[in-house]
Amino acid sequence: MIKVGIVGGTGYTGVELLRILAVHPEVSVSCITSRSEAGMPVAEMYPNLRGHYDLAFSEPDVNVLGACDLVFFATPHGVAMRMVPELMSAGVRVVDLSADFRLKDLDVWANWYGMAHESPEWAEKAVYGLPEVVRDEIRTAQLVANPGCYPTAVQLGFLPLLEQGLVDPKRLIADAKSGASGAGRQGKIGMLHGEIGESFKAYGASGHRHLPEIRQGLCGAAGGDVGVTFVPHLIPMIRGIEATLYAELRNPADFDRLQALFEQRFDDEPFVDVMPFGSHPETRSVRGANQCRMALHRQEQSNIVIVSSVIDNLVKGAAGQAIQNMNIMFGLKETMGLEAPALLP
Amino acid sequence: MIKVGIVGGTGYTGVELLRILAVHPEVSVSCITSRSEAGMPVAEMYPNLRGHYDLAFSEPDVNVLGACDLVFFATPHGVAMRMVPELMSAGVRVVDLSADFRLKDLDVWANWYGMAHESPEWAEKAVYGLPEVVRDEIRTAQLVANPGCYPTAVQLGFLPLLEQGLVDPKRLIADAKSGASGAGRQGKIGMLHGEIGESFKAYGASGHRHLPEIRQGLCGAAGGDVGVTFVPHLIPMIRGIEATLYAELRNPADFDRLQALFEQRFDDEPFVDVMPFGSHPETRSVRGANQCRMALHRQEQSNIVIVSSVIDNLVKGAAGQAIQNMNIMFGLKETMGLEAPALLP
Amino acid sequence: MIKVGIVGGTGYTGVELLRILAVHPEVSVSCITSRSEAGMPVAEMYPNLRGHYDLAFSEPDVNVLGACDLVFFATPHGVAMRMVPELMSAGVRVVDLSADFRLKDLDVWANWYGMAHESPEWAEKAVYGLPEVVRDEIRTAQLVANPGCYPTAVQLGFLPLLEQGLVDPKRLIADAKSGASGAGRQGKIGMLHGEIGESFKAYGASGHRHLPEIRQGLCGAAGGDVGVTFVPHLIPMIRGIEATLYAELRNPADFDRLQALFEQRFDDEPFVDVMPFGSHPETRSVRGANQCRMALHRQEQSNIVIVSSVIDNLVKGAAGQAIQNMNIMFGLKETMGLEAPALLP
Amino acid sequence: MIKVGIVGGTGYTGVELLRILAVHPEVSVSCITSRSEAGMPVAEMYPNLRGHYDLAFSEPDVNVLGACDLVFFATPHGVAMRMVPELMSAGVRVVDLSADFRLKDLDVWANWYGMAHESPEWAEKAVYGLPEVVRDEIRTAQLVANPGCYPTAVQLGFLPLLEQGLVDPKRLIADAKSGASGAGRQGKIGMLHGEIGESFKAYGASGHRHLPEIRQGLCGAAGGDVGVTFVPHLIPMIRGIEATLYAELRNPADFDRLQALFEQRFDDEPFVDVMPFGSHPETRSVRGANQCRMALHRQEQSNIVIVSSVIDNLVKGAAGQAIQNMNIMFGLKETMGLEAPALLP
Repeated sequence: MIKVGIVGGTGYTGVELLRILAVHPEVSVSCITSRSEAGMPVAEMYPNLRGHYDLAFSEPDVNVLGACDLVFFATPHGVAMRMVPELMSAGVRVVDLSADFRLKDLDVWANWYGMAHESPEWAEKAVYGLPEVVRDEIRTAQLVANPGCYPTAVQLGFLPLLEQGLVDPKRLIADAKSGASGAGRQGKIGMLHGEIGESFKAYGASGHRHLPEIRQGLCGAAGGDVGVTFVPHLIPMIRGIEATLYAELRNPADFDRLQALFEQRFDDEPFVDVMPFGSHPETRSVRGANQCRMALHRQEQSNIVIVSSVIDNLVKGAAGQAIQNMNIMFGLKETMGLEAPALLP
Repeated sequence: MIKVGIVGGTGYTGVELLRILAVHPEVSVSCITSRSEAGMPVAEMYPNLRGHYDLAFSEPDVNVLGACDLVFFATPHGVAMRMVPELMSAGVRVVDLSADFRLKDLDVWANWYGMAHESPEWAEKAVYGLPEVVRDEIRTAQLVANPGCYPTAVQLGFLPLLEQGLVDPKRLIADAKSGASGAGRQGKIGMLHGEIGESFKAYGASGHRHLPEIRQGLCGAAGGDVGVTFVPHLIPMIRGIEATLYAELRNPADFDRLQALFEQRFDDEPFVDVMPFGSHPETRSVRGANQCRMALHRQEQSNIVIVSSVIDNLVKGAAGQAIQNMNIMFGLKETMGLEAPALLP
Repeated sequence: MIKVGIVGGTGYTGVELLRILAVHPEVSVSCITSRSEAGMPVAEMYPNLRGHYDLAFSEPDVNVLGACDLVFFATPHGVAMRMVPELMSAGVRVVDLSADFRLKDLDVWANWYGMAHESPEWAEKAVYGLPEVVRDEIRTAQLVANPGCYPTAVQLGFLPLLEQGLVDPKRLIADAKSGASGAGRQGKIGMLHGEIGESFKAYGASGHRHLPEIRQGLCGAAGGDVGVTFVPHLIPMIRGIEATLYAELRNPADFDRLQALFEQRFDDEPFVDVMPFGSHPETRSVRGANQCRMALHRQEQSNIVIVSSVIDNLVKGAAGQAIQNMNIMFGLKETMGLEAPALLP
Repeated sequence: MIKVGIVGGTGYTGVELLRILAVHPEVSVSCITSRSEAGMPVAEMYPNLRGHYDLAFSEPDVNVLGACDLVFFATPHGVAMRMVPELMSAGVRVVDLSADFRLKDLDVWANWYGMAHESPEWAEKAVYGLPEVVRDEIRTAQLVANPGCYPTAVQLGFLPLLEQGLVDPKRLIADAKSGASGAGRQGKIGMLHGEIGESFKAYGASGHRHLPEIRQGLCGAAGGDVGVTFVPHLIPMIRGIEATLYAELRNPADFDRLQALFEQRFDDEPFVDVMPFGSHPETRSVRGANQCRMALHRQEQSNIVIVSSVIDNLVKGAAGQAIQNMNIMFGLKETMGLEAPALLP
């Protein structure tokens, strides 16, 4: 059994880790921390976990965390970078669901997150945990930076196009939409049901923190610089991201082989599903499941490739991918604990 | 492995059976029928099942069904009663999720369902499958009538009060509310998102088909006649039932022992959770899970017991309870395949 | 033109007053106050008002308010009772949408609102502004206590039954459900979309502040003491209240005349609509409109009268009723500014 | 008073016309037709209209319609083109909310709508009723083709850019999202609440009927051919469209003058609101109102202009714009009956 600790368990990614791990056959959650709620049973805050956990939230304690095999950070940015070095020294492995170790350029990081990075050494060593790109490095990584939700949906959809050099890398557009759980569980007026129910809007259209993460990943796939425009939107629902991606095909004749290319690229991937050409993936088809589904489209006589890509932002976009990374790191079957179909309807 | 067939698999209870059974370790689904969609792969209609089933819907065929160990009926009323006798003769066991075998008084049945019952013999023999009441009979039953969604939530909440004779059985009120999936998956204008989104209403307030089923169950618990008023309402969401129950305590002094009574009554029940006195169960705490959660309330100086009871109408109110019944019938661990926590948020 | 001031304009009842008054032909809004947002243009906080108001929120100033013909309080409880006496002295008329002047028994008020009442004199003089009950007193009132949202829906539905003494006044049950806007616009975690979307629950089931207000009103209608159980619930939508009311008819033969009784009772009421017997009023049928719609039901051989009553909690349950009261107080046509049909779908 | 007839009144645009016209001071609705519901009072189908209309749906009768001053068609495509010629002969003016007269190229029309056009003469004469482009022609038009919902939101947002030739007209992308009411009020399984609630998806991504209409309008603005990619999406809500538009600025230095350009372009337009640079228009800010709100965005060092444009698909995208057109045609104040602010929250 892998002994797991969770730092910052009161948010939506924390409860989602607990939900999935509750039925993972090789994991035992030994501690879950929260400064603000220390002492409260997790099942009192999250009644879906009644009968599944006897744990209570505890103050973060490096000795306790240091005795774990793996620690997940489900914290706001700025927390993991301060605690990780000590855990690394203790030989603990870490999957950080926050943004602290995702960017390699720490000036860019400092600029978007408004503080200096405090662990440049580990920022360099961290493996950006998108298994579909760097599975082998994840196996042996001590520190995995779990990708953001939007970056997961956007990167997976663009990957085959950029890796093959089929599209103009300077003209990428990602129009993405997310349910409200992506904003976390803080008492902000702007996230009240009364404010966002029955309404839709763009946000962060002049620049969002996931933009540099997306750009970094796409540059890697393209093997060079890219130009990408990324606009997120808020959907009046709880879970799910849909990203509609637009790229300009260099040679329109390539349209004929795109579907096969995508299918081959993800053929061995347990958590990426390429649907038939012209399909419309629904976010509900991945609700609660560690899946990315995508489909390709073309409009008549156009050289624009359209990719629609969906994930559950809390699963393949956060906790599920973190557990997928854990499975890889510990040599377990990659799909362990992640087999259940999505909840539909 | 139990070889399972499903009759009428295109509706929401059909897909829910498939979703849960996809990860049930002792079940193999060998056929799923649909007259209207014969030939269509189930994963094409329900993309959450892509990668989980290779099955296609087929025409119902008694020979094929007759080779199953267990057949679930997820059909509209009137179908199972015509097919069940032949399956019984073939020695197949059946869990009928429709209303065909729930009522013992067939005049009442005929009155509410608008047709004569065609299998009175099996209506008499059928076991009404509420495990919390008749677990032992379910073990050996050949035909189990799976309870309705509202009746499950309402009966479980009233049970301890009526069994102990603590309340006036003539003055029971059940004000129940359900998400839209309870109405099934037919193309009715009244169930369009544009019609029921952002709105709330009572329906069937002058009489609903679940009223006689509720009355029958409550009479059994009370050991005599009851008077119950039942008003269902439609919530603008997909899954979940909340029933607020009102009963008049004969002796207000009994209030002090109600919480203990409820806890004892359900202490050994894996799927009924009595929350602390004064809690407010949320439907999301059981979303996708085979759970009933309930809590008791009293208003100052009142002798009215208030019980709030929640289930997922498609799980403990339909497919989950059916699989619970199957587990009991086949001597499996009752919770097998039903362990995953609810999807929250 | 009536010169109107609004105290506490940043909440949902504040913006709703502005929305309706924007097209009221006899009103000019001269000031709207908010301590926290002083200086911010109202149209910046509420973009639906862009082009309709040049006003900005201002610090509350008794001199400015004292120059108004009418002041609406759209504040949390505890504010109006401190400011009203001075405004009364200045000869200003007030409609208080908060709870400060609704209860006549100030011990009960203190008990439920957790503070001593600071204006007992005006609490006594205030008219409880349910026009369908005390229209004539409203005409000349200087201070009107605008009814709560639940109390409006519940009282209107029970009124004819209690006024005529047709039901047992000791056995009244009001099972009420509200959209999320009823909880106001504060950054509480419990009201996030991620918390209440796609879920349903009771709340305040052991006692809610609207219970004493409801009881006071029903006692008035019954001409004596009543026993009422009131359980509110939270619907995953923004606007609307539905109350399902249960009362025991003393003489079942009276069922035959109930529909006529209700129709006569509200025949001259512009904002109460008695639908045909057996109808199911939808909250969307009153969305944005100053209407209460209701309908009667009976279940077979039962002596329980069922009334389903719907309002928009922000309109007939708050701002609309306040403007209706204003129209009455100033001798205007009672429906002025309140004529537009509900927004459906 | 303008005597108005409505053909095809049972759908969402029909009831929306009735809702707005109920308080229009210069209009009297004299008939509303529906073949399927002839005889049913409109207030029975749409209870929000109780007390506002005594009308019942009637069979369409050219004599009755011919006695109207103006007839609105709120029908599926293919109906208006058959009835319009006779009404034109009778001297009646028509605003057609369907797609019949929107496209000038009837081969394109036939291709997308699957039938030959039956009134080429009037298709040529019809004025495409986007007042912000062709107000003067609308004044005298006998037949106005009311624009589609998506085309309204998309065209208004691109107009200033194309009219001034500031962007590459061959690289326009419109990623648009709509609430469910845009699909009308037919009993389709795919539009059930159980199917589209809590989910999001693209649809028609390989080609949608509004694409040729958008292209036609944008070509007009650009004074030449354009290349536009248009992908619609379905939002789990009822009303509202948001379109995020992407265009490549020919000269990045032009960014500095875009805001002023947009403000000037729409300065005199009562129903287009250009918000401050960097704002995020919400669909709720136009719910129920005849408004288009838009805002501009730029991401760092990018030459992509981003425009976010919102409308209520049933108002500025259908019934409201139709009434705006009527006001223009009959020399009324353009805003008459359309002054009320949006319903927020």
